[in-house]
Amino acid sequence: MTAFGFRTSHANGHARLGWFTTPHGVVETPAFMPVGTHASVRGLAMQEIRDAGAQMILANAYHLYLRPGDQMVRALGGLHAFSRWEGPMLTDSGGYQVFSLARYRKVSEEGVEFRNKIDGSLHQYTPEKVMQIERNIGADVIMQLDELIEGGSEHRASYRAMERSLRWLERCRVEFERLDRDGRAPVRGLTVPDGAPALSTQDMTRDVVAPPQALFPIVQGGTYADLRTASINGILQSGDWAGIAVGGLSVGEAKSAMYDTFDTCAPLLPLDKPRYLMGVGFPDDLLEAVSRGMDLFDCVAPTRMGRHGTVFTSDGKVQIQKSSNRTDRRPLTDDCACPACMQYDRAYLRHLMVTEEPLGPRLLALHNLTFLMALMAKAREQLAAGEFGAWSSGWLSRYRSKGMG
Amino acid sequence: MTAFGFRTSHANGHARLGWFTTPHGVVETPAFMPVGTHASVRGLAMQEIRDAGAQMILANAYHLYLRPGDQMVRALGGLHAFSRWEGPMLTDSGGYQVFSLARYRKVSEEGVEFRNKIDGSLHQYTPEKVMQIERNIGADVIMQLDELIEGGSEHRASYRAMERSLRWLERCRVEFERLDRDGRAPVRGLTVPDGAPALSTQDMTRDVVAPPQALFPIVQGGTYADLRTASINGILQSGDWAGIAVGGLSVGEAKSAMYDTFDTCAPLLPLDKPRYLMGVGFPDDLLEAVSRGMDLFDCVAPTRMGRHGTVFTSDGKVQIQKSSNRTDRRPLTDDCACPACMQYDRAYLRHLMVTEEPLGPRLLALHNLTFLMALMAKAREQLAAGEFGAWSSGWLSRYRSKGMG
Repeated sequence: MTAFGFRTSHANGHARLGWFTTPHGVVETPAFMPVGTHASVRGLAMQEIRDAGAQMILANAYHLYLRPGDQMVRALGGLHAFSRWEGPMLTDSGGYQVFSLARYRKVSEEGVEFRNKIDGSLHQYTPEKVMQIERNIGADVIMQLDELIEGGSEHRASYRAMERSLRWLERCRVEFERLDRDGRAPVRGLTVPDGAPALSTQDMTRDVVAPPQALFPIVQGGTYADLRTASINGILQSGDWAGIAVGGLSVGEAKSAMYDTFDTCAPLLPLDKPRYLMGVGFPDDLLEAVSRGMDLFDCVAPTRMGRHGTVFTSDGKVQIQKSSNRTDRRPLTDDCACPACMQYDRAYLRHLMVTEEPLGPRLLALHNLTFLMALMAKAREQLAAGEFGAWSSGWLSRYRSKGMG
Repeated sequence: MTAFGFRTSHANGHARLGWFTTPHGVVETPAFMPVGTHASVRGLAMQEIRDAGAQMILANAYHLYLRPGDQMVRALGGLHAFSRWEGPMLTDSGGYQVFSLARYRKVSEEGVEFRNKIDGSLHQYTPEKVMQIERNIGADVIMQLDELIEGGSEHRASYRAMERSLRWLERCRVEFERLDRDGRAPVRGLTVPDGAPALSTQDMTRDVVAPPQALFPIVQGGTYADLRTASINGILQSGDWAGIAVGGLSVGEAKSAMYDTFDTCAPLLPLDKPRYLMGVGFPDDLLEAVSRGMDLFDCVAPTRMGRHGTVFTSDGKVQIQKSSNRTDRRPLTDDCACPACMQYDRAYLRHLMVTEEPLGPRLLALHNLTFLMALMAKAREQLAAGEFGAWSSGWLSRYRSKGMG
C-alpha cells in the first residue's frame, strides 16, 4: 500500500486541498476525472484530455472485460500502455453497467449473472471475478463490486443492498489480497502475428505479479442517513483503505437530498483518505460536494451533454443549437482556454452541430471537460488562499442566475 | 484574374511539378485536396489537416447553400473566416449532390429543380444561381454547374449532357463576370444578438464587391474520347480559364477506361493551366493520373474509408478490424507521421473501431489523408529530381503486390 498516500494542506470548512499519490503520479484534489469507458474518452485524444488539465481518468471494467477482454488488456501491457495514458487511472467495477446495460441479469448473494447485450453470452460477475478482472486490467485504483438498486428505493431494499455490498466488499478484499500474495493466474493461448512484439503475458514470471493497486470501498445506503452511517462504519471496520467512494447518488433524488447525504457522510469519513464521489459532474454539484468534503469526481454527463450541444458556461448551461447563435461570431465563452473557445465562434459551432459534423460533438465535449478542470483548478487555488467559501458562493450565484439552470 | 497563376518547373513525361497561385496562397502540385463538405473535414480540426500537409481544401456549395445558407456564410465573413482555413479553398457547385442526394429532381435546359431532403423545400439550381451561391460563399476556386449523368451512359446521352454542360458553362461565365462588374446582391434582414459583432453584410458598400475568384470549367463526356475532345475544344473556345477540371470519372467505369480518358485529355489541355481531376483519391489512381498530367485531386473516399477502418499503407489497403490485429502492438505503418501511426498501435486502433469509439474513425481518416499528402509530397520530390517515372512504377508495384488491392 506504500505506493498510495493522501495528504491535505488546507481546509476551508469541510472542503480541503489535497494530494493523492498513486503509482502513476500525484492527483491534486479536488479533481474531476474524465471517463474513458473503453479506455478512450469518447472522441478525444489523450493529449487533448491532458491539455484540458486532466490528472486522472477512468475506464470501465465491465466494458473492457467484454472487449477486448481483461486478459487481453493485460497481455497488451496493461491499461496505461494500452490507452497511452501515463497518469493515474481508475476502473469502475462495472457493477452499474451490469445493472443498466445487460440484456438479462439475476442477482444473488453469490453475485450477478448476466447476458452480454452484444452476443448474448452468459457471464458471472462475482466479487472475486471482478477483482481478477480489475487486477488484470491494471488501473491504479480499482472499485469493489457493489449491489446497485433503483434510485428512490425503499429503506428496506436500500438496507439489504447496503449490507450485501459490505459482504461483497469483504470478499473483494480477500481476493484482492490473495492476488497480491499468490499472483494472477497465467494467461495462455494468446499468439501474435509474425513480426509483432511479444505480449506481456509471455513472460509469465513477471506477468503473474499483480501491479500495485488500491481497492476502494463504496458507501451505499441511498438517501437514508442511518444506512449511510452504517455503511461507513462497516467499511471502516473491514480494512485500511487508501480511499473511500460514495456511490448511489445523482440517480434521480432531489439535489437537496444528495447534498444532505454529503453532510451525513463527511464527518464520518477519515480526514486522511480521499473521498471519491461517483457519477456526479455538474459544475454546481461539484462545488457543493467540494464544500462538503468530497475530493474526487467522475461523470459521463459533461462529455455526453457536450456531444449533444449543451455547454457549461460561468452563466449556466447553454444550448449551442439555439437560433440566436446562427449569426453570433463571439467565442463560445470568454474565459476558457479550450479549442472551441479559442479557435471558433458560436455560429460555426452551431453549424457543426446542426449539420451533424462530428467535429462539433468533439469540440463541445472537450469544452465541458476543460471547463470542469478549470473550475477544480480554481477551487484548489481558492482553498490554498483560504477563500473557497466566499468564492464558491459567488460562483454558484452567477452560475444559477441565468442560463438553463 | 491576376490573383491566380500557374507555372511548372519540371516535367517527367506528362507529369509535372507546378505552383498554383490563389488569393489565399500557393498550392504545390500535384496535390490532394481534402473534402470539407460542410466547411469541416469530417471529424477533423483544421490544424490537424494542416499538420497532415494539406494546402488547399474543398467545401460543397450545395450543402452550404442549404445550411447555413450561402448568404449566411458571406455574412459571417466568407468561407475562410467561417471555417478557420486560411489557405486556398475550392467549392464544388453541388451539381453532383443535387443529382445524388435530392429527394426529387427535374432537369431541363434552364437548370435543375429539386426538393431538399431535409425539409422538403423546393429549390432551383441554375447556372446563374450557382454562381451567385458560390460567389457568396467565397472560395478561391469555384466550379461550374454541369449536367451529370449515370456512369456508363450511352454515347448519345453522354453527348447531350456534355453539350448542355458547355451551354451552362457559358451562362456561368456570363453571370460570374456580371457579379464581378455589378457586385453581389445586398444581403438584408440578418440580425445579430445583443453584444455580438456586426456581420460583414452590414457594410454594404464593401460587401457587395465579390472576392477575387476563379471559375473552373469541367470536361465531361464519359469514357468517349471523341466527346472528351469536343468538351475540351468547347471549353477552350469559351474563355481563358485559370484552371480546368476533368469530371465524370471514377463512377463505376473500368480503371483502364479511366486511365485512357486521362491519356485522351492530357495532350489537349493547355500546359500552363492546372488540371483538377474531380473525385479521384485512391493512391494508385493518383499516381496514374499524375503520370498522365493531372495536378489537383479531391475525393471523400480516403476519409470515408478511414472512418470504416480501411487504411492506406505502402503495401496496399488493410482493414484494421481483421482479427490478427487483436494482439498486434506494432504501429499501423512504419513510414507515416500521423498520430495513429506515431502514438498508437494496431491492437488499440482495432479496439477503438470494434467498440465504435469515435476516436477510431477520427484517427484513421486522418491517417489516410496524411498518407495521400505524403504520397503527393514524395511525387513532387521525385518530379523535381526527374525520377518520377521509375519511382512511381516501383511504388505502384509494391502497393499492388499485397494487401486488399
